[in-house]
Amino acid sequence: MKKIEAIVRPDVFPHIREALALHGIDGFSVSEVAGIGKQEGRTGLFRGNKYEMEFHTKLKIEMVVDDSEVAALTDLIVETASTGKVGDGKIFILPVEEAIRIRTKETGAIAVH
Amino acid sequence: MKKIEAIVRPDVFPHIREALALHGIDGFSVSEVAGIGKQEGRTGLFRGNKYEMEFHTKLKIEMVVDDSEVAALTDLIVETASTGKVGDGKIFILPVEEAIRIRTKETGAIAVH
Amino acid sequence: MKKIEAIVRPDVFPHIREALALHGIDGFSVSEVAGIGKQEGRTGLFRGNKYEMEFHTKLKIEMVVDDSEVAALTDLIVETASTGKVGDGKIFILPVEEAIRIRTKETGAIAVH
Ligand SMILES: Nc1ncnc2c1ncn2[C@@H]1O[C@H](COP(=O)(O)OP(=O)(O)OP(=O)(O)O)[C@@H](O)[C@H]1O
Ligand SMILES: Nc1ncnc2c1ncn2[C@@H]1O[C@H](COP(=O)(O)OP(=O)(O)OP(=O)(O)O)[C@@H](O)[C@H]1O
Ligand SMILES: Nc1ncnc2c1ncn2[C@@H]1O[C@H](COP(=O)(O)OP(=O)(O)OP(=O)(O)O)[C@@H](O)[C@H]1O
Ligand SMILES: [Mg+2]
Ligand SMILES: [Mg+2]
Ligand SMILES: [Mg+2]
Repeated sequence: MKKIEAIVRPDVFPHIREALALHGIDGFSVSEVAGIGKQEGRTGLFRGNKYEMEFHTKLKIEMVVDDSEVAALTDLIVETASTGKVGDGKIFILPVEEAIRIRTKETGAIAVH
Repeated sequence: MKKIEAIVRPDVFPHIREALALHGIDGFSVSEVAGIGKQEGRTGLFRGNKYEMEFHTKLKIEMVVDDSEVAALTDLIVETASTGKVGDGKIFILPVEEAIRIRTKETGAIAVH
Repeated sequence: MKKIEAIVRPDVFPHIREALALHGIDGFSVSEVAGIGKQEGRTGLFRGNKYEMEFHTKLKIEMVVDDSEVAALTDLIVETASTGKVGDGKIFILPVEEAIRIRTKETGAIAVH
């Protein structure tokens, strides 16, 4: 299994969510993060002795899926999250060793499907 | 070391927290996530052109522990987080390559104990 | 690639952020977590039947970087996050199998640089 972590613009989230549902994905979590990304303006700028921070609110989508789903889902997220402008976000893939559905104690691929 | 990520109902959290403390675990983080899970009703339903989202507030517990602790801790979380109703949540186990206690610069198992 | 997850005191964050920028790092995410750590007082204390929880607000910094950057960045975080008092926080290193910059579809090390 893999964990897909996608950091995206809040305003594209409804499109991603709809595409995921149409793809049959109905298990994931979403949270807000304050994001810093390349080319967003202020890196290196100081005001007095205090670093001038510029953050952008992003949404982090976390989804654990079977290995066989990773390519299709990252493609789906890239397509629905792209605007072509800087700040569209990132997707990270992390290994997951086990998954458990608490209610049924099912483990592995069946627990994330 | 492993990272245990548990997504649970907010109202079972006090029980989990107490069980963890009695087990001797006193290092972990908690945050809120908006969760989508299977069988929660609305998948595939549209209202006009906009996907109808139904989210549930869940708590995400993150805990890095020694490999030898993983089985006991996942059992403990499954037991204290179960209500038997859909939406009880998930547990994910991810590999962790290093841990550092910032104050002492200790690393590895000693840093998470 | 690796994911660096650093749980730090909110008040040292400006120093970390400045040090990261001077080091050339301009991609990461920050969020709030409620943290429990060793030696923070109340473990084992009950009030009636309810566990007495004591949480501290911490910031979680998440940063995916090339393997070659991990040692320098953890050193930088340890130095800028240390106050010498309990509660300074933890750093965890997790393996990351892939990274994608959504705008350009670049993958791997180039996507996190
Ligand atoms: N290396 C990274 N590790 C973790 N999170 C990152 C990283 N880089 C970016 N992010 C997160 O992704 C968000 C969006 O990044 P962004 O799309 O601006 O990346 P970028 O590399 O600057 O690409 P672009 O040139 O298209 O803007 C950031 O605000 C941050 O939350
Ligand atoms: N595959 C997944 N990846 C990441 N997070 C998930 C995944 N599946 C569920 N979650 C998170 O766990 C929460 C609870 O999921 P839930 O318990 O409803 O899972 P389920 O598979 O629908 O099981 P049940 O049939 O018992 O409801 C979701 O709201 C979401 O936050
Ligand atoms: N094993 C762990 N797994 C995940 N998060 C942890 C773990 N231990 C601590 N944390 C997070 O780090 C925060 C700070 O922990 P803290 O610095 O108090 O660690 P500690 O082991 O008690 O070290 P110290 O003795 O220096 O206080 C906690 O509030 C929690 O958010
Ligand atoms: Mg950018
Ligand atoms: Mg469900
Ligand atoms: Mg402590």
